[in-house]
Amino acid sequence: MSTLREEALKMHQENRGKLSVSSKVKVRDAKDLSLAYSPGVAEPCLAIHENEGKVYDYTMKGNLVAVVSNGTAVLGLGNIGPKAAMPVMEGKALLFKEFANVDAFPLCINSTDTDKIVEHVKMLEPTFGGINLEDIAAPQCFEIEERLHKECDIPIFHDDQHGTAIVTAAGLINALKLANKNIVDIRVVANGAGAAGVAIVKLLLSMGVKDVILCDTKGIIYKGRPVGMNKFKEEMARITNKEQKQGSLADALQGADVFVGVSAAGAVTKEMVRSMNENPIIFAMANPTPEIMPEEAKEAGALVVGTGRSDFPNQVNNVLAFPGIFRGALDVRAKEINEGMKIAAVYAITDLISSEELHADYVIPDPFDPRVAKHVAEAVAAAAIKTGVAQKTFDFTTT
Amino acid sequence: MSTLREEALKMHQENRGKLSVSSKVKVRDAKDLSLAYSPGVAEPCLAIHENEGKVYDYTMKGNLVAVVSNGTAVLGLGNIGPKAAMPVMEGKALLFKEFANVDAFPLCINSTDTDKIVEHVKMLEPTFGGINLEDIAAPQCFEIEERLHKECDIPIFHDDQHGTAIVTAAGLINALKLANKNIVDIRVVANGAGAAGVAIVKLLLSMGVKDVILCDTKGIIYKGRPVGMNKFKEEMARITNKEQKQGSLADALQGADVFVGVSAAGAVTKEMVRSMNENPIIFAMANPTPEIMPEEAKEAGALVVGTGRSDFPNQVNNVLAFPGIFRGALDVRAKEINEGMKIAAVYAITDLISSEELHADYVIPDPFDPRVAKHVAEAVAAAAIKTGVAQKTFDFTTT
Repeated sequence: MSTLREEALKMHQENRGKLSVSSKVKVRDAKDLSLAYSPGVAEPCLAIHENEGKVYDYTMKGNLVAVVSNGTAVLGLGNIGPKAAMPVMEGKALLFKEFANVDAFPLCINSTDTDKIVEHVKMLEPTFGGINLEDIAAPQCFEIEERLHKECDIPIFHDDQHGTAIVTAAGLINALKLANKNIVDIRVVANGAGAAGVAIVKLLLSMGVKDVILCDTKGIIYKGRPVGMNKFKEEMARITNKEQKQGSLADALQGADVFVGVSAAGAVTKEMVRSMNENPIIFAMANPTPEIMPEEAKEAGALVVGTGRSDFPNQVNNVLAFPGIFRGALDVRAKEINEGMKIAAVYAITDLISSEELHADYVIPDPFDPRVAKHVAEAVAAAAIKTGVAQKTFDFTTT
Repeated sequence: MSTLREEALKMHQENRGKLSVSSKVKVRDAKDLSLAYSPGVAEPCLAIHENEGKVYDYTMKGNLVAVVSNGTAVLGLGNIGPKAAMPVMEGKALLFKEFANVDAFPLCINSTDTDKIVEHVKMLEPTFGGINLEDIAAPQCFEIEERLHKECDIPIFHDDQHGTAIVTAAGLINALKLANKNIVDIRVVANGAGAAGVAIVKLLLSMGVKDVILCDTKGIIYKGRPVGMNKFKEEMARITNKEQKQGSLADALQGADVFVGVSAAGAVTKEMVRSMNENPIIFAMANPTPEIMPEEAKEAGALVVGTGRSDFPNQVNNVLAFPGIFRGALDVRAKEINEGMKIAAVYAITDLISSEELHADYVIPDPFDPRVAKHVAEAVAAAAIKTGVAQKTFDFTTT
């Protein structure tokens, strides 16, 4: 067991987790008790009963996000169940707090049934200002998010999909500047049709990419492929692969400008990179071992390489996105997190690297760049207002 | 609007509620991130996946209680719904924290369906170390608690029932010392067959009271009463009223030793108190106006009078019970809160008043007596060990 592992276990055990609940007001005497609890508490209750929107004024709801998981697709660990997922969900909630002062709370729930999960989260709507779905296996995660998005009046955001997509897209936008290519002209090949792969493809399409091919372990996804399809992949086949190519990942990559991998170690060879268009851009995000190691990709001619790892340049780290996105959404009481808000987040992240600073090993800002969350929050809040989903104006001077 | 009301609204609004989520560990750099989140967090996840009990070592679960309500019976406000119930549930969670350092979290859920509520809470079991049900209307609350108690391996406690019952019983035990009566000889009349009334009667029976009559707005509850019955009242009719008397509350009170009211203002007259046995004991807990005002009850001969109000002596305040009960249950990782633990809590509260201190206006300790939570916790933990529901020993020296 490495030192990091021992240290991580020790830290978790010594603290008995990473979060606690804390009091904003003290209860030292009968007077305090009469304000915070009976009889004084009846006043905010009655005010909310008369006008439901007041729940944002008198309770913690307006700054509160649930981090909901059933533990079926946790990090690289897979289906380890809700109890074993708790350290990750507490960690996620911790990042919300540390990076954007969002009160986030882990809820690891004991069900793998789509209807039950949807119903569970809907029942929580009175309490929370937003829901971050996390580490729920594909394809179930798509239907859960879609239904909740339709049926709830608070933002629903599956970070494994959209957080990853937003940060990848930000890196791509900056990499295209270096490659001197226009987003509408490029061909992107994505490998991995799980939560992240599907979301990346959809986001890139909505940002103007015209030519995308999505692959999975069975190769290129096309309409009516006889093996390994489901309704979500059929939808992807309809909206991607305009020539309806068939074949392997290697076939897809020939002449492509961009590779985006959310798949498995070793999926891409130097040979494949060499077959791509000039100045290939590679995001090899398999964890812990990328689809191709950065040095190999570079040797084969890659212009920019990003991974999921902090020990290589251009780390695609979701913490660049989700804290600021929820901060912005909560600050204007957005009813949802829509495509416009996601794209605003992409460009807010991209913006943080000036054209002078931009280079092949710096297309994505550092996760600890202190400007990130605020900058993303402001862009997301402005986009919420512009797209008509904000229920409150935003005082940009106070963030 | 009184000053208290204005102050309460202001306090809630200024703080945007009363609770926040806070970090036990800091995330300042890549090293911190690698311990609290990926990749280090995988270690506690894997440890829990191998041995589920480790979730208590590596996460916040072991000190975490959900305060769950659907807002159908909130304080004296009635069915105001889950959003309007939030200030109360946040307040309850605040009291858990302030009185016993339990991390408690409010969950106001949007359902009035028994099956859905039971399922919802069961799905939360991986996350929480205990569940405090709150302000759920009777008789639904009985079935919800009963089913959860059977189906979950963590403590389930409906405070409106048992918290009130425990503190009332503690006051009664002390009052009986002053009246020089033995618990097995007394006749108790309870008025109000809601959550608290039913729980008080059941607890007193399990503590040795032999003769109890329960009344509701239709008078004495007896087997086969033609009006206003349900399956829970039929059960009460079977276990109480040994002579199967019929009649009014006034009929029931003739010759009774104790009146316990969780009903409505003015339900008891001086005349009724005068008809009771010598040295009558009165707990008139209707809020905000008691069944009979203390001075009237005293004029009519009452030896001891308790109410729900802080401005009269002998306040029956649940905060004397629930923080210490959960503290004790969590400290020994009790699988449930059973009758033995509840009775231990009763006597722990009773104990805090010495025979020298005991008098008619001091049969219940002050809610801010700093000894209460610790003393109750130790007694409850010891009872959990004794009754075989503790999953861990308790280091009494550290509380």
